[in-house]
Amino acid sequence: MSGGGGCCGELYSCVFDYSTPRIALIKSRKVGLLNRVIQLVILAYVIGWVFVWEKGYQEFDTVISSVTSKVKGVAATNTSELGFRVWDVADYIIPPQEENAFFVMTNLILTPNQTQRQCPEVRVQTGRCVAYNETVKTCEVDAWCPVENDLTVPKPAFLGSAENFTVLIKNNIWYPKFNFSKRNILPNISTEYLKSCIYDRVNNPFCPIFRLGSLVEEAGESFQDMALLGGVMGIQISWNCDLDKKYTHCVPKYSFRRLDNRAFDHNVSPGYNFRFAKFFKDSSNVESRTLMKIYGIRFDVLVFGTAGKFDIIPTMINIGSGVALLGVVSK
Amino acid sequence: MSGGGGCCGELYSCVFDYSTPRIALIKSRKVGLLNRVIQLVILAYVIGWVFVWEKGYQEFDTVISSVTSKVKGVAATNTSELGFRVWDVADYIIPPQEENAFFVMTNLILTPNQTQRQCPEVRVQTGRCVAYNETVKTCEVDAWCPVENDLTVPKPAFLGSAENFTVLIKNNIWYPKFNFSKRNILPNISTEYLKSCIYDRVNNPFCPIFRLGSLVEEAGESFQDMALLGGVMGIQISWNCDLDKKYTHCVPKYSFRRLDNRAFDHNVSPGYNFRFAKFFKDSSNVESRTLMKIYGIRFDVLVFGTAGKFDIIPTMINIGSGVALLGVVSK
Amino acid sequence: MSGGGGCCGELYSCVFDYSTPRIALIKSRKVGLLNRVIQLVILAYVIGWVFVWEKGYQEFDTVISSVTSKVKGVAATNTSELGFRVWDVADYIIPPQEENAFFVMTNLILTPNQTQRQCPEVRVQTGRCVAYNETVKTCEVDAWCPVENDLTVPKPAFLGSAENFTVLIKNNIWYPKFNFSKRNILPNISTEYLKSCIYDRVNNPFCPIFRLGSLVEEAGESFQDMALLGGVMGIQISWNCDLDKKYTHCVPKYSFRRLDNRAFDHNVSPGYNFRFAKFFKDSSNVESRTLMKIYGIRFDVLVFGTAGKFDIIPTMINIGSGVALLGVVSK
Repeated sequence: MSGGGGCCGELYSCVFDYSTPRIALIKSRKVGLLNRVIQLVILAYVIGWVFVWEKGYQEFDTVISSVTSKVKGVAATNTSELGFRVWDVADYIIPPQEENAFFVMTNLILTPNQTQRQCPEVRVQTGRCVAYNETVKTCEVDAWCPVENDLTVPKPAFLGSAENFTVLIKNNIWYPKFNFSKRNILPNISTEYLKSCIYDRVNNPFCPIFRLGSLVEEAGESFQDMALLGGVMGIQISWNCDLDKKYTHCVPKYSFRRLDNRAFDHNVSPGYNFRFAKFFKDSSNVESRTLMKIYGIRFDVLVFGTAGKFDIIPTMINIGSGVALLGVVSK
Repeated sequence: MSGGGGCCGELYSCVFDYSTPRIALIKSRKVGLLNRVIQLVILAYVIGWVFVWEKGYQEFDTVISSVTSKVKGVAATNTSELGFRVWDVADYIIPPQEENAFFVMTNLILTPNQTQRQCPEVRVQTGRCVAYNETVKTCEVDAWCPVENDLTVPKPAFLGSAENFTVLIKNNIWYPKFNFSKRNILPNISTEYLKSCIYDRVNNPFCPIFRLGSLVEEAGESFQDMALLGGVMGIQISWNCDLDKKYTHCVPKYSFRRLDNRAFDHNVSPGYNFRFAKFFKDSSNVESRTLMKIYGIRFDVLVFGTAGKFDIIPTMINIGSGVALLGVVSK
Repeated sequence: MSGGGGCCGELYSCVFDYSTPRIALIKSRKVGLLNRVIQLVILAYVIGWVFVWEKGYQEFDTVISSVTSKVKGVAATNTSELGFRVWDVADYIIPPQEENAFFVMTNLILTPNQTQRQCPEVRVQTGRCVAYNETVKTCEVDAWCPVENDLTVPKPAFLGSAENFTVLIKNNIWYPKFNFSKRNILPNISTEYLKSCIYDRVNNPFCPIFRLGSLVEEAGESFQDMALLGGVMGIQISWNCDLDKKYTHCVPKYSFRRLDNRAFDHNVSPGYNFRFAKFFKDSSNVESRTLMKIYGIRFDVLVFGTAGKFDIIPTMINIGSGVALLGVVSK
């Protein structure tokens, strides 16, 4: 089998012989130096940028998240219409629970004692036109009467003191690819601390309890302005984690941003409001309702992030790619 | 240091000398041509497909989104049971606000004046069996009585006129990696236009106000059929943006799709419905309720998309990979 | 044009000539064998790992999902306070519908007949301090009175029998990049089967109807313990699909996980609860309410997954990268 002619021999030499091109050596300081510099730059790029900066050796996964929230606070109002009244959580949080958001009422147009009948205004028309008030005549409509008058919004906002309410946000995240889960209430936070802390970007960056007013101010907005017509705030929780590091290095980062158009940008339905009714029946079984046009701030908790962990595939792809570039230069 | 023997000299020549293989030139027109053609094809692939078509030079991010919606419209019904009645937003939107969805009631089975007592039917059984009606005897149960009878659904749908309702959808998106945010109410849209426009795929593709009936028809469904038993519609907003282009090129694209099983596919709980109760108390403090089995269409706003922006990493990976392929062919 | 000197000729020979390095053949069995082994390992890696295991020839997309749920079940309670009472879906599901979640009440602190007046306790203080009971004096407050007493939670849980309730979960998924959509009610499931089946990891892994108690137990928790103070459960539906295979191979995979802190980890707001009120009016038009502190389990349906399909780009990137690695070894 050693050497010799024939088919076998050819196959043998094809598999076991090692071929290499003969090399011509050019003894030029300039060309050599330039060549080495370019190789160094590419090597520095591959190692420095791809591996150190962009973590090209990692595989990534995006976050799966679950959020609960619990608002605390009581407000008192004193108006001619309603008299002195206290508002607690069951009054101003509507609906009482949501998945990734919570809504806090800040302003209100109340239309009590509406019943289904005919009254002056402009919706489902009966054809008859009657006096709306002493000076204006409008057409009679079938509707929930009296019809809501939402031409003027209470100013200052009815529940402007909502800025002192606090909210506890509990967030549980999960990276399915790495089966890694964590909570925003970090394990090293004591129960005592949680009972008294308020989130602060500098001093208490991991406290999950937020004062609504501070939260709006962090986003560069005025709570009292926003309270008038309502709006949508984003509470952004970023979970960018390097899972090659220790468990304790993976922590949430909070930021805040206003999500709706400001009033002066486009005044079609500025702010955020919706209508909600409480239904009643009197002793003769006639249904009436209290219509509420509720202005308020909806807080959307937006959780996002990517986790990276060492993986052989992207490492090899990046090395292969870097090597190919090196090879081109060397030729 | 120049030339000379010893260890130093070897190191010197290793670093600064440039070695190149000597080349044998084959003057063959056929082999040469074939070689060039293959190289051109690969080059065309790398440049054309990877870079022009698939944007291999870009890094990508997926969208973070926030949605609010506001439905407008009034419906009137006239039934023997309820008499003439007007339905507005506070009656047919349940719950009054949701995060990425809204629900519009289209059909209804009403069971008024339910109280907690014993009556004939089949839930929590007391053991005694009494006459349900003249011909049928069923077992007496503890329940909210009278028990709901949902064997027949009103046909045509009770609030079929909901097809003329309109909804204003406000969508704010954000690409955290590029800190790029935009709204579906584009900056060049005037307030006047927003007050009168209705979305239309051809003529008004950027109007954020949708007529519910048209929206269902765009998905190839009949609103009146869907209104009977309810269903789930997807309002898909796609934000695929090339952030290397101008800000104004990043625009939303709407599409519509029915998300639930049609009635004839699997008739286990076809459509979409849920039960909801309004609670009342009479003068002697006894609680009663009006049970509503509410059929309707839930509109899920599904926002998705990726944004791409030039980044050095994927560019280098793709070039490296292309170069490697070129190199193989050249050998 | 054939051969010859001048500019044209040089261009001609540059384009059509084929150059190859001359090769020196080393006839060494050891070196050759080692070389082949290394090449085989890399080839095995590129083919085996990248292509077979990690599907490096595919492009990927993440899932877009829509979820509806329908809970069934009736519970009966008998307490001194409320007497015998039956609880159905309209009583214990709050809010009546949500997008990707549903909430089931399991425990309850009821404070009926609250009205706005002054009574002893500690919120909005009037300055006067009065007897709270025979032994304790507290300060008088303006509030919804009588003030809720939530110091003791009913034990065992008021609606512990909720563990026998069932829920039908309908999930529609969509991969926009491949325009592939599917439902968790698989086409081969018969209506008969759906009417009687209950999910079971081993025997009925594709039945979309879940018994709440079994679901909590699958996650390694006790339903009765969780029912006391409430909690958050994740119903995870994973849709990892290889779209190069048949349509029927893409199926959902269910798993269950508790998402909130357990009571003994951090006892700040343990479990999950919220406050909700029903509003009433008496014959003299005075508003009263029944305040409910509702403990319960929120079930979050978390849908995730990636679909892969053959695509030329990642294939070429991986081949290119693998080839580059092969090339290095061959030198």
